[in-house]
Amino acid sequence: MKKSIGAGTYAVPSPVWVVGTYDENGKPNMMTAAWGGVCCSRPPCIYVSLREATYSYGNILKRKSYSVSIPGEEHWREADYTGIASGRETDKFKDTSLTPIKSEVVDAPYVEEYPLVLECRVKEVVSLGLHTMFVGEVIDVKVDQDVLTNGRPDIQKIKPLLYGSGDRGYHSVGPRIADAFSIKTPPK
Amino acid sequence: MKKSIGAGTYAVPSPVWVVGTYDENGKPNMMTAAWGGVCCSRPPCIYVSLREATYSYGNILKRKSYSVSIPGEEHWREADYTGIASGRETDKFKDTSLTPIKSEVVDAPYVEEYPLVLECRVKEVVSLGLHTMFVGEVIDVKVDQDVLTNGRPDIQKIKPLLYGSGDRGYHSVGPRIADAFSIKTPPK
Repeated sequence: MKKSIGAGTYAVPSPVWVVGTYDENGKPNMMTAAWGGVCCSRPPCIYVSLREATYSYGNILKRKSYSVSIPGEEHWREADYTGIASGRETDKFKDTSLTPIKSEVVDAPYVEEYPLVLECRVKEVVSLGLHTMFVGEVIDVKVDQDVLTNGRPDIQKIKPLLYGSGDRGYHSVGPRIADAFSIKTPPK
Repeated sequence: MKKSIGAGTYAVPSPVWVVGTYDENGKPNMMTAAWGGVCCSRPPCIYVSLREATYSYGNILKRKSYSVSIPGEEHWREADYTGIASGRETDKFKDTSLTPIKSEVVDAPYVEEYPLVLECRVKEVVSLGLHTMFVGEVIDVKVDQDVLTNGRPDIQKIKPLLYGSGDRGYHSVGPRIADAFSIKTPPK
């Protein structure tokens, strides 16, 4: 018998993604978001949901572009800080000594030190309430070669952070369990 | 120096969620989706992205409701099977001996054996290409009491599956790393 705990954003896991944008003066900014995911395979699309109050929100609306840089778990402190401080008041790249790289395919910077980067052009903007979804078409993916396995990004090498909304904490990726798309008849 | 690997859905991690729906005859169905996430805090909203070819797609359009049941890692075989078989051809609840429970708040069933359930009413439908996003407002959350900590769902007790799109594999949740919202000054 399950217990009702009321409506809330208790779904797990959420990612920890760092959204890269330029402001109107060309200053690079980054902010951490946990409301994000993949939303279409063809064309490949992802989204991030941001509050209107964030500096990144205005930047994305103006530039129609953003990047998502995915930190490894060793960068949890930097990722946490960039989710708290505002680019309106400080330069978070300078604060953290992380390096903004200008994308060659979209009008946004990404984080050199984070192993996996998705460069996105805004495709849809969906206002839902406190948050607005920015659906972006993935124009290119950049990756550090040492996190590739058979030419593809390997979650076991990237070691991305997971966000748990129930405990407001960061968690790591554990061992690989199994191949997906392998159980083609009902399991016993 | 990063390597370009072309556009793709290589973002990590993705969740492994089981979407519960009723068909036009009231038969409960479930399908597994990895394209899903939280997209608004107030009102609380999540989404799942489905291909038009799925049985669930039509069910959601007709009933304007769905549930998301989040399996623990011990159910990876059932979750994998329910992502391959189609409800158009079989009864996946019977096949897996899992139990459909009729939601009292939305027009959809959920999976009794899975520890965390979000019951959703469709708020927005966004066609992106191969996939369509069904944004749902979370009307209630149901949870097994043994996965609660301080009254909230605990990812360390739920042990949800992670999907890695690069390796097409399932992965587990590892240890908790730290509290979020704790690094308020630039890390050294």
